Amino acid sequence: MKKLINKPEDVVNEELEGLALAFPDIVKVNFSPNFVYRADAPVKGKVAVISGGGSGHEPMHGGFVGKGMLDAACPGQVFTSPTPDQMYEAAKKVHSGEGILFIVKNYSGDIMNFDMAADLAKGDGIEVKSVIIDDDVAVQNSLYTQGRRGVGTTVLTEKIVGAAAEKGYSLEKLAELAKKVNGNGRSMGMALTSCTVPMAGKPTFELAEDEMEIGIGIHGEPGRERMKLKTADEITEILADAVINDLPFKAGDEVLAFVNSMGGTPDIELFILYRKLHKILDLKGIKIVRKLIGRYITSLEMQGASITLLKLDEEMKELWDEPVKTPGLRWGI
Amino acid sequence: MKKLINKPEDVVNEELEGLALAFPDIVKVNFSPNFVYRADAPVKGKVAVISGGGSGHEPMHGGFVGKGMLDAACPGQVFTSPTPDQMYEAAKKVHSGEGILFIVKNYSGDIMNFDMAADLAKGDGIEVKSVIIDDDVAVQNSLYTQGRRGVGTTVLTEKIVGAAAEKGYSLEKLAELAKKVNGNGRSMGMALTSCTVPMAGKPTFELAEDEMEIGIGIHGEPGRERMKLKTADEITEILADAVINDLPFKAGDEVLAFVNSMGGTPDIELFILYRKLHKILDLKGIKIVRKLIGRYITSLEMQGASITLLKLDEEMKELWDEPVKTPGLRWGI
Repeated sequence: MKKLINKPEDVVNEELEGLALAFPDIVKVNFSPNFVYRADAPVKGKVAVISGGGSGHEPMHGGFVGKGMLDAACPGQVFTSPTPDQMYEAAKKVHSGEGILFIVKNYSGDIMNFDMAADLAKGDGIEVKSVIIDDDVAVQNSLYTQGRRGVGTTVLTEKIVGAAAEKGYSLEKLAELAKKVNGNGRSMGMALTSCTVPMAGKPTFELAEDEMEIGIGIHGEPGRERMKLKTADEITEILADAVINDLPFKAGDEVLAFVNSMGGTPDIELFILYRKLHKILDLKGIKIVRKLIGRYITSLEMQGASITLLKLDEEMKELWDEPVKTPGLRWGI
Repeated sequence: MKKLINKPEDVVNEELEGLALAFPDIVKVNFSPNFVYRADAPVKGKVAVISGGGSGHEPMHGGFVGKGMLDAACPGQVFTSPTPDQMYEAAKKVHSGEGILFIVKNYSGDIMNFDMAADLAKGDGIEVKSVIIDDDVAVQNSLYTQGRRGVGTTVLTEKIVGAAAEKGYSLEKLAELAKKVNGNGRSMGMALTSCTVPMAGKPTFELAEDEMEIGIGIHGEPGRERMKLKTADEITEILADAVINDLPFKAGDEVLAFVNSMGGTPDIELFILYRKLHKILDLKGIKIVRKLIGRYITSLEMQGASITLLKLDEEMKELWDEPVKTPGLRWGI
């Protein structure tokens, strides 16, 4: 296993230490239980937005804590759900009296543990709502999921809902907005290579030199089909068609196009995918009016990419454009 | 070769097409000869700042074109110097009458071709100055270099000088500033894995499962030493010691700490390096007052990292904080 780490069991704690040292103006980190929270929390008069999930998908979620996005993020061990005490303690730390929105990716462990945390917080009189993200069109059920997995739309939801919270939306309105974003977002990913979970010490799966996995999950769990390697244009077509036909996206739609690296795929390749995606959408009369291109929801060093499309309305466009200042996403501030 | 590409010979052009489609508000792309330039160029009353070099280091340089950074960038083929006509045509396109500053990484091909472009532009009556970046402490001469190679400090120079150009610095003052940044910046990198140049189709070099290369160049060219894999803390010490002792950086210095992924190394590992770097500097009384952490000067999908330290003064700090809006670096706008 070739990684820039010390002991595998220290990876998450040491990463969090680094994050806190690097961005003291934006985030603080609580250890035992682990969570990242806004340096200025609790923010008075604002609903607090909390997400979390296994580590290994950086910058999601810890890198999305800050003004205009999350109030707290609860990282589990690599590819492992966080425990209820993490979300419960985070909720108490960032709650300003206006309630808490949990943004939860649809994985069975995450759902269960966020539910338990919500119950604990409610026991303390904190109002909590949870919204589930399940935008991955690859498979209906999967290794860790009842129903669809939550992937790229999570990042977009955190940005849009985070901006709305900053603008003073009520908990109820925020939960509705989060459901709207999830309902209008669809994703699918693929992998050229596996990744290696530090504690496992060996690749999660094996792919032959001429193979790829279409519809891969962000933990390397199986997707739709293992097939021979194709060109970037063909791969973009496979991903885009699955995403477009699912909602479906239609001529006249305005979308946010999100081309995401699984971690190891460099920018030069992402722009080749984006080029083809732009052409595919253009031919169908679907207009890209916002975009996000880079590494935002990753699987450690896995090579591969995912495409997310989000059908936008005026509210989502305006909220997307609002300033954001987090370690992983920043503009306007 | 596992990459998200179409034909190897189309990689650079297709990437540039994608970049132009993704950021039409920030950049335009000229083909034959290839260069990326500010959508609003020429910017009246401003010295134009141009850089360039082989592709494969994205976001550098094309991703750094935009308000507050570069006016144009000239990408060669992957790991290959751009040709003089690229810089010459770019210079004519972005020149507003105030002169041109070339920021050139110290590689023999780049130096020669930027020199020829400068002569061509001067022949047209355009005033041109060139500043060479040679901050890599790993080796004195190298495969492609007389003297030290230019690496991480290039990114920092482009940001700081770009901000100064925006503020109306004269060509002479900009050239002085660029030399000051280069004179105060030092870098060293290392690799866990090789990368594969698309046209070559096979890894540039081989490293055994338990080996790493210290002092690697950004084209995979040899560094100081091939050695057994060490822990992240030990690797950080090796890189930091070489960088600190070279300038040397001393107690009381205020620095910008730049922890950069070679491409394939994910955020989670960069923060582990940053954590150790912070501790090393802290013990020496060197204070990190600005930081940059991520993938900014890469070697395709290579796994590895580099550390750059830049000794700051008030001028550099203020210019670093100025707004920037490019595809690859953005804040304040």
